[in-house]
Amino acid sequence: MTRRINVIGIGLGAAEHVTGQAIAAMNEVDVFLVPDKGESKSELLDARRQLCSTLISHSRWELRTIIDPERGPDAQRDAAQYREGVAAWHSARVAQYVAQIAALPDDAVVGFLVWGDPAFYDSTIRMVDQIAAQIDVDVRVIAGLSAIQVLAAEHRIPLNAVGEPVHITTGRRLAQEWTPEIGTVVVMLDGRLACRELVNRAPDSWIYWGACVGMPQQRLIAGRLAEVIGEIERVRAEVRAELGWVMDVYAIAPAPLGR
Amino acid sequence: MTRRINVIGIGLGAAEHVTGQAIAAMNEVDVFLVPDKGESKSELLDARRQLCSTLISHSRWELRTIIDPERGPDAQRDAAQYREGVAAWHSARVAQYVAQIAALPDDAVVGFLVWGDPAFYDSTIRMVDQIAAQIDVDVRVIAGLSAIQVLAAEHRIPLNAVGEPVHITTGRRLAQEWTPEIGTVVVMLDGRLACRELVNRAPDSWIYWGACVGMPQQRLIAGRLAEVIGEIERVRAEVRAELGWVMDVYAIAPAPLGR
Repeated sequence: MTRRINVIGIGLGAAEHVTGQAIAAMNEVDVFLVPDKGESKSELLDARRQLCSTLISHSRWELRTIIDPERGPDAQRDAAQYREGVAAWHSARVAQYVAQIAALPDDAVVGFLVWGDPAFYDSTIRMVDQIAAQIDVDVRVIAGLSAIQVLAAEHRIPLNAVGEPVHITTGRRLAQEWTPEIGTVVVMLDGRLACRELVNRAPDSWIYWGACVGMPQQRLIAGRLAEVIGEIERVRAEVRAELGWVMDVYAIAPAPLGR
Repeated sequence: MTRRINVIGIGLGAAEHVTGQAIAAMNEVDVFLVPDKGESKSELLDARRQLCSTLISHSRWELRTIIDPERGPDAQRDAAQYREGVAAWHSARVAQYVAQIAALPDDAVVGFLVWGDPAFYDSTIRMVDQIAAQIDVDVRVIAGLSAIQVLAAEHRIPLNAVGEPVHITTGRRLAQEWTPEIGTVVVMLDGRLACRELVNRAPDSWIYWGACVGMPQQRLIAGRLAEVIGEIERVRAEVRAELGWVMDVYAIAPAPLGR
């Protein structure tokens, strides 16, 4: 027997976003390991627990929280320091996971639930690769709906113009990577609306913005960048004031998408 | 009452790829409109019918095929001609759909089933926008797993290097868009393995290739581009010989992803 790890993409938190394959993979799990990022994110922990209760048909599953190692502030760091910081933080996490998994029975199935899709801007697969380098485990990965896709579906748009590319990047890189030829740019991990830097360079771009996409608190705004950026700033601040946090994602295109 | 159109992403064809939200949206549908691309694609038509039989709990649904308008060859066309050709072909399709939908009862729900995700390189949303410009309909879009995501999950990789971008493009554009700084490039709609053009420019790139991803016939190959391109060509030809068609997708990155 070899222990197994199921890395499971669960979409945006609603049970209806989860695929049948992901539900089956959740039902195989004995112990879900969940990083505990402290009180501010406990809503996310509750949401995971709720999802397991709704979708798992046996009662032996357990959700075990792992205290997340301290991580220094990202601001003021250059790209190399950022990567180093992330790597050190992952290693500390990995050591905790290895200790937990090694203490489980030989035939245990461990689950990691990943918001959105493990393929996009998520560190779980990299951590699991590090775990697998230290102890003998089989690994399966199950794709899930990403915020990118739900953003597009809720705005009822395709992401690419006909035959044109889609560039997915971070808020940190947007200003340096954007060119008039880049096609649609989807921006993730942006804590500060980096698209403000494009208002003067590309005022006629079209933006499709969403906060809490796929959740009951969802807010959507679309329009000409220079015209709607003020409204996006206002609604983003509103959501943050209301929930204590805001997760947003947006696409910027040279012209309206679809139609 | 207003007629409704549900555009539903169904993933890669297996019932287990479909989300609960997509299953619910399928169950609302009275008539699925499906383009009939002729005998060579009838396997895809059968797969849609099978999926409906499996996932829909009522019996009033109907799958109605629409003969697809003729479409000229794409080869030898420049980008502008390509876009014009696609646009004309869409308009002819749209006229047929409008005629069908207008003949349905006022409270009918029409379904379009989209392989993968309607957001990536699919024309359904654009056609539905054209339909909605001609007759009064409500439109809902439901995201589905794309081949991009299933490729990543099956290779057990994240698509982005830490903090780096993911560029999604077509085989047609790969050679002109690729630069050493572009990050991970995902290539779709590539009928001729355009990545061969990168073997000399970027032999040390890492490629993650998949044919029929998520299906029983799935084939996966990963490795250093210059080393595995021959094997990819061979396996791709094998799959095509066996099935009469091959659908493949791949990601190319400057270094192995994950680990």
